[in-house]
Amino acid sequence: MATKGLVPALGGTLVNRITDSGPKGTFSGSETAIVLTERQQCDLEMIAIGAMSPLTGFMGQKDYDSVCENLTLANGTVWPIPITCAVDDATASGVNSGDKVALLDNDRQLLGYLNVEEKYAHNKTMQAEKVFLTTEDAHPGVKVLMSEGDTCLAGPIDVVCPKYDPDWSEFRLTPAQTRAKFEELGWKTVVGFQTRNPIHRAHEYLTKCALEICDGLLIHPLIGQTQAGDIPADVRMNCYTTLIEKYYVQDRTMLSVLPAAMRYSGPREAVLHAVLRQNYGCSHFIVGRDHAGVGSYYGTYDAQDIFTTLAGNGLDITTMNFEHSAWCTKCESMTSSKTCPHGPEDKIFLSGTKVREMLAKGERPAVEFSRPEVADILIASMK
Amino acid sequence: MATKGLVPALGGTLVNRITDSGPKGTFSGSETAIVLTERQQCDLEMIAIGAMSPLTGFMGQKDYDSVCENLTLANGTVWPIPITCAVDDATASGVNSGDKVALLDNDRQLLGYLNVEEKYAHNKTMQAEKVFLTTEDAHPGVKVLMSEGDTCLAGPIDVVCPKYDPDWSEFRLTPAQTRAKFEELGWKTVVGFQTRNPIHRAHEYLTKCALEICDGLLIHPLIGQTQAGDIPADVRMNCYTTLIEKYYVQDRTMLSVLPAAMRYSGPREAVLHAVLRQNYGCSHFIVGRDHAGVGSYYGTYDAQDIFTTLAGNGLDITTMNFEHSAWCTKCESMTSSKTCPHGPEDKIFLSGTKVREMLAKGERPAVEFSRPEVADILIASMK
Repeated sequence: MATKGLVPALGGTLVNRITDSGPKGTFSGSETAIVLTERQQCDLEMIAIGAMSPLTGFMGQKDYDSVCENLTLANGTVWPIPITCAVDDATASGVNSGDKVALLDNDRQLLGYLNVEEKYAHNKTMQAEKVFLTTEDAHPGVKVLMSEGDTCLAGPIDVVCPKYDPDWSEFRLTPAQTRAKFEELGWKTVVGFQTRNPIHRAHEYLTKCALEICDGLLIHPLIGQTQAGDIPADVRMNCYTTLIEKYYVQDRTMLSVLPAAMRYSGPREAVLHAVLRQNYGCSHFIVGRDHAGVGSYYGTYDAQDIFTTLAGNGLDITTMNFEHSAWCTKCESMTSSKTCPHGPEDKIFLSGTKVREMLAKGERPAVEFSRPEVADILIASMK
Repeated sequence: MATKGLVPALGGTLVNRITDSGPKGTFSGSETAIVLTERQQCDLEMIAIGAMSPLTGFMGQKDYDSVCENLTLANGTVWPIPITCAVDDATASGVNSGDKVALLDNDRQLLGYLNVEEKYAHNKTMQAEKVFLTTEDAHPGVKVLMSEGDTCLAGPIDVVCPKYDPDWSEFRLTPAQTRAKFEELGWKTVVGFQTRNPIHRAHEYLTKCALEICDGLLIHPLIGQTQAGDIPADVRMNCYTTLIEKYYVQDRTMLSVLPAAMRYSGPREAVLHAVLRQNYGCSHFIVGRDHAGVGSYYGTYDAQDIFTTLAGNGLDITTMNFEHSAWCTKCESMTSSKTCPHGPEDKIFLSGTKVREMLAKGERPAVEFSRPEVADILIASMK
């Protein structure tokens, strides 16, 4: 690991689109105002804090088309998923290039402004085919996309408040803040771990494998928009803090949240997740099987393999590909199909359904599957 | 891991200095003949099979000086330790540039020829200071160096037989052969593990951590000249084959031997070990604490840190730095100081002395320290 400092932000410079000047609170200005969708609010925050560097706002058409077609911005920098501000035609008809549009949350709190430079047609079917590899409405990412407006407004943003009453503000570090902490801790190589589930032994194992060869570990749960049915962020956060306290080394492990929305676009989203972590200062990024996938839309290894096609487009983060892992009673350790020759009969494995059943009944899974402290939090959350 | 094929050999081309033409067997030619030392015989084989690419023979003075001073060959390619054919003055006086000198083993079997291009003074004290950071005779590498002749003969070699009656010929793969096997197995990323000891749970753990993020693992024990007191190569090889059979995945793990001599020069030797493995086709190389060190001549992390100074000199292999590891009874897994917050009282650790005592008495160490199958081989070897 011959890195001499932290990896650069994508495009070379960390973006900051947060401005301290201007009004705050409930919107009362005379500008055209748009209430952003939950996903757009997530994207707005991600752009504003620099997590989506080099983006300074919502994408224009050249970038949109290039991202869909080539997985790069128009200038050739890697970018896998359009970041757009789509609005309905009625709204769009009242907005013109040069306008400054106020961006609001559901309570009409002012989040910031979009300096409109461009309006263009939201080519949703093309986007679904390219980004999700399907146009089926059963795909949760396609469903959200298809529900969006037909016109994209594009241009740089200025944000006065990324989010009102943010959850987990103690752990809501910006890329500038994680980078400062990494430097303070003397970490040069940092592996980022994306998760939207509690961490059981399998994921603990792979984060620790990765940490063995890096200076530090960033456990970086996504807490923006996810699917109905996912375990709530506050329960997950309790699991993470407890697990880290009991089983991780404090000055080698950092917990921070990623206020991004899930797209469930598998390989392309894995690339986005890696890009975001590069901006947060990670040198390495863990990619599991079926990363960010849903249903059977993507091949098991597609999210790992896609990275081999991206060299030289500004992506400086190194992916670490992992298999599923489980405790082997013959090896007496956590293992994967790459490191253990024994069969499934020697593995302690529980399906997600089985684990939920056990937890709902107040039963802890085997300690080889889940730390008891984590199991207890999940059991309590189900009561 | 965005590698598209195996890493290139150092300098770009795998060297092959083995010739099928010419006489074999006991030397009976009219050329000047030199009986090589054990180390020189190791180096001869390593050069001939391409493991020391781009070297085509024993180093001339420009390379020798540059290696000592800059850790690079005269052309700027990374190279950390002089590879020389030093002879005594009496022998040297009978050899001139342009001579073809026969190279023999202790039984006067013909190994090959040195096409002498240069003679120069063997600057042993300078070399010891630069390469070993000490001139103390107590250092085993310095001791061997100081016992060598005062004149170096340099030039390309042609080898008719790298070694007579080689040990472990089944596992004595050349770099061309390991590369062919890696390609056959579809491995693009391969981590090399240097060892000159039996593999207990601690080293099993780190090879498996590394394997989790690579396609394959090359367990690559050094079987050339080592120190008196080291466990004999045949015992170690029995340990490796048994351990791999029982606890590793056959099509993810390869055992082959490295017929190199140890220098015990710590950080510089770690670089040599990495260079050699790059030539064998490894993309990654495990560097532990005190790698290739002896006594207290080198700092704990010197062999890991030296790689940060070598970027851009042709070294394409990525090092993976590891801490010491041990079983933690609280984590119920192998851990290191980076991945486990618990104290030494929770660790199952045995000193080398203690392990030898136990094995000599026929006692197996705890299964968390050593696999019983490996312990039994070591116990049997001590009877």
